Amino acid sequence: MKILITGFTPFGGEKINPSYEAVKLLDDVIAGAKIIKLEIPTVFRKSIEALDKAIKSEKPDIVMCIGQAGGRFEISIERIAINIDDARIADNEGNVPIDETIYPDGENAYFSNLPIKAMVKKIRENNIPANVSNTAGTFVCNHIMYGLLYLINKKYPDIKGGFIHVPFIPEQVMDKRNMPYMTLDEIVNGLTYAIEAVVENKEDIKLSCGKIC
Amino acid sequence: MKILITGFTPFGGEKINPSYEAVKLLDDVIAGAKIIKLEIPTVFRKSIEALDKAIKSEKPDIVMCIGQAGGRFEISIERIAINIDDARIADNEGNVPIDETIYPDGENAYFSNLPIKAMVKKIRENNIPANVSNTAGTFVCNHIMYGLLYLINKKYPDIKGGFIHVPFIPEQVMDKRNMPYMTLDEIVNGLTYAIEAVVENKEDIKLSCGKIC
Amino acid sequence: MKILITGFTPFGGEKINPSYEAVKLLDDVIAGAKIIKLEIPTVFRKSIEALDKAIKSEKPDIVMCIGQAGGRFEISIERIAINIDDARIADNEGNVPIDETIYPDGENAYFSNLPIKAMVKKIRENNIPANVSNTAGTFVCNHIMYGLLYLINKKYPDIKGGFIHVPFIPEQVMDKRNMPYMTLDEIVNGLTYAIEAVVENKEDIKLSCGKIC
Amino acid sequence: MKILITGFTPFGGEKINPSYEAVKLLDDVIAGAKIIKLEIPTVFRKSIEALDKAIKSEKPDIVMCIGQAGGRFEISIERIAINIDDARIADNEGNVPIDETIYPDGENAYFSNLPIKAMVKKIRENNIPANVSNTAGTFVCNHIMYGLLYLINKKYPDIKGGFIHVPFIPEQVMDKRNMPYMTLDEIVNGLTYAIEAVVENKEDIKLSCGKIC
Repeated sequence: MKILITGFTPFGGEKINPSYEAVKLLDDVIAGAKIIKLEIPTVFRKSIEALDKAIKSEKPDIVMCIGQAGGRFEISIERIAINIDDARIADNEGNVPIDETIYPDGENAYFSNLPIKAMVKKIRENNIPANVSNTAGTFVCNHIMYGLLYLINKKYPDIKGGFIHVPFIPEQVMDKRNMPYMTLDEIVNGLTYAIEAVVENKEDIKLSCGKIC
Repeated sequence: MKILITGFTPFGGEKINPSYEAVKLLDDVIAGAKIIKLEIPTVFRKSIEALDKAIKSEKPDIVMCIGQAGGRFEISIERIAINIDDARIADNEGNVPIDETIYPDGENAYFSNLPIKAMVKKIRENNIPANVSNTAGTFVCNHIMYGLLYLINKKYPDIKGGFIHVPFIPEQVMDKRNMPYMTLDEIVNGLTYAIEAVVENKEDIKLSCGKIC
Repeated sequence: MKILITGFTPFGGEKINPSYEAVKLLDDVIAGAKIIKLEIPTVFRKSIEALDKAIKSEKPDIVMCIGQAGGRFEISIERIAINIDDARIADNEGNVPIDETIYPDGENAYFSNLPIKAMVKKIRENNIPANVSNTAGTFVCNHIMYGLLYLINKKYPDIKGGFIHVPFIPEQVMDKRNMPYMTLDEIVNGLTYAIEAVVENKEDIKLSCGKIC
Repeated sequence: MKILITGFTPFGGEKINPSYEAVKLLDDVIAGAKIIKLEIPTVFRKSIEALDKAIKSEKPDIVMCIGQAGGRFEISIERIAINIDDARIADNEGNVPIDETIYPDGENAYFSNLPIKAMVKKIRENNIPANVSNTAGTFVCNHIMYGLLYLINKKYPDIKGGFIHVPFIPEQVMDKRNMPYMTLDEIVNGLTYAIEAVVENKEDIKLSCGKIC
């Protein structure tokens, strides 16, 4: 089994992006699966192009994209990506799309087809805060997740894919007051448990992770 | 023009629900539109049935459903509803669906077809915090919003509809520490501005309200 | 009975200061007491000089100083002021004292001699969030509270005095995300209830308002 | 040099207290100083008695008491302790004092005589969030800090002492939503840096750590 796992370049004034910092530190084999690591640009469109190119050449069974969620307390396993770009800040090439459809022939939204509840359960059992999230935002993180699931839907029906948001790491919060973070070790371990859960669970489990609002 | 506006019954241990408390206090005519008010049960399925029945009998041009978002600071204009029920607590009849599809023949998600950015702009201009939200959760609020947009899509193509989340009101937070709230007056005013924006804007405006994550 | 009540000038980049905005709107007589209103500069030392001058000329029975506490959710009745200036930002004349004693002959700290629990109780009974706070910070708010209680201790033993922190008002949070606020009406009402409680309670009541940390 | 460092027993429904969990893991010698570890009960009065007894028998040069601050994001170096007990919950023997003076012959408050800014600086330099706090609350943490500084003032003038609050650790937040925490490793490291700073700095440094409110 082969798993392609991506992280992003730094954006929004940050000097590092914990998503790729963590991806770099993952073992090369996890739960028997070969791990292929890729850094993709925090840029609308180009990020999806880079991902599509890597899928074509690597032919992975599973694709997991990782992104930074500054301000979140937990590792967030994203449930769904929506067909809209709505940027509050510029991406790394200055694009600021507002309310633009990502793919006119795509569905309004795609659900991750990874076992998201099993991933949450495994991470939590190892004392790392995790939860399902019902929004990946409307910036490049949602964009790449939507792009991945669109590609799976249109071109790669046998691939399983999804997205994980990770908090800031300590060096990013030293000059921010009361900002949640996780150590890089915890993030690397959390992603490792998530990958193990994906390999171990063909079907997702039933687990209450809903949100009232 | 006729606008059907709904609020929910109290749930989750609260004695009141600010959504219907505010709906009750709305003027009967706003921006020239006749306002029809309806309280619907915080119950999966029954809430949609009550809404469908009211749409059939009242034949409104616009339907706006309002719900309580305990813990949020702003009036949230919801962008999208997703085809899943995932309850963390029981609804008012004891139902706790986990990861159940709302309508098997529905799309993964439906976007509100109200002018959400114009609504945010008008509320903010009147010094009431407001923003677009990209998730209505996975409880009865998302359920009714999805149900409304499903009905519009399948049976009532000429209706415009969407969902607004409102914060707690003061009496709900007196025994909670550091919990955001709005006065009932602010919520009533905010909903009134939202309704005015809906009447005044056939098309939505461009306004940056995106979220990074 | 005569009550001197002060608010501050705007600081820290804000265009208004809700403390004096609210003081301006107080009735001229509350609970039979004459209310004297004073705006004082958000400046170390000069604020205390302005207060001392007003106490000398007005000869009040009670002095209540009000200040802005951006980021707090509640009206905070301050319990204690400490003998230290430690500024994170400059005051309105550019002073940035770090770890400087306010009065070398003053005590380490002075407790408010207002009935702080009775004030909290009365405000809360009227559905306005309020609590006792155990720190007024180390900027000009703590400085004026310490200065007031030092003056009471050294020169005006018959005066009762204390400090109240109030949250931002709506126009201050429109460009801040997830920032708590109160409407100006709520703040004016809250201060009025606080003043009533001071007039009505010669001794404080027993009420659990402690904080674990 | 000998340093007595204390942690508390669990309280408030928690099964562990990160303060003593961390103290247990400290090296026996840090920066050349011998570290004496003591667990004290989360009980008003008895905690001070246990501390006084240990000071008498161990004759330390420095005493640092550590406590749990659930809800805080940072390691908090406390600046000051105040002469009041005001419990919101019962201590571990059911005591719930409200507004009781700790020592009638004590000052209103005592400042820590540890180099608090140097401690913050050293911890932060090692990428662990830390700050000065101006309130240790009004529960047993403030009580022991006040008791320690009262004892130093009255009986042990050559001892230096102070208090550090530490956040929850991961296992305590797995069932709490959006609750800040630190790993036990980070806390142990943070306390070690704090101890090193105490040994290395006879006088405190100038560093802006003030709070506006």
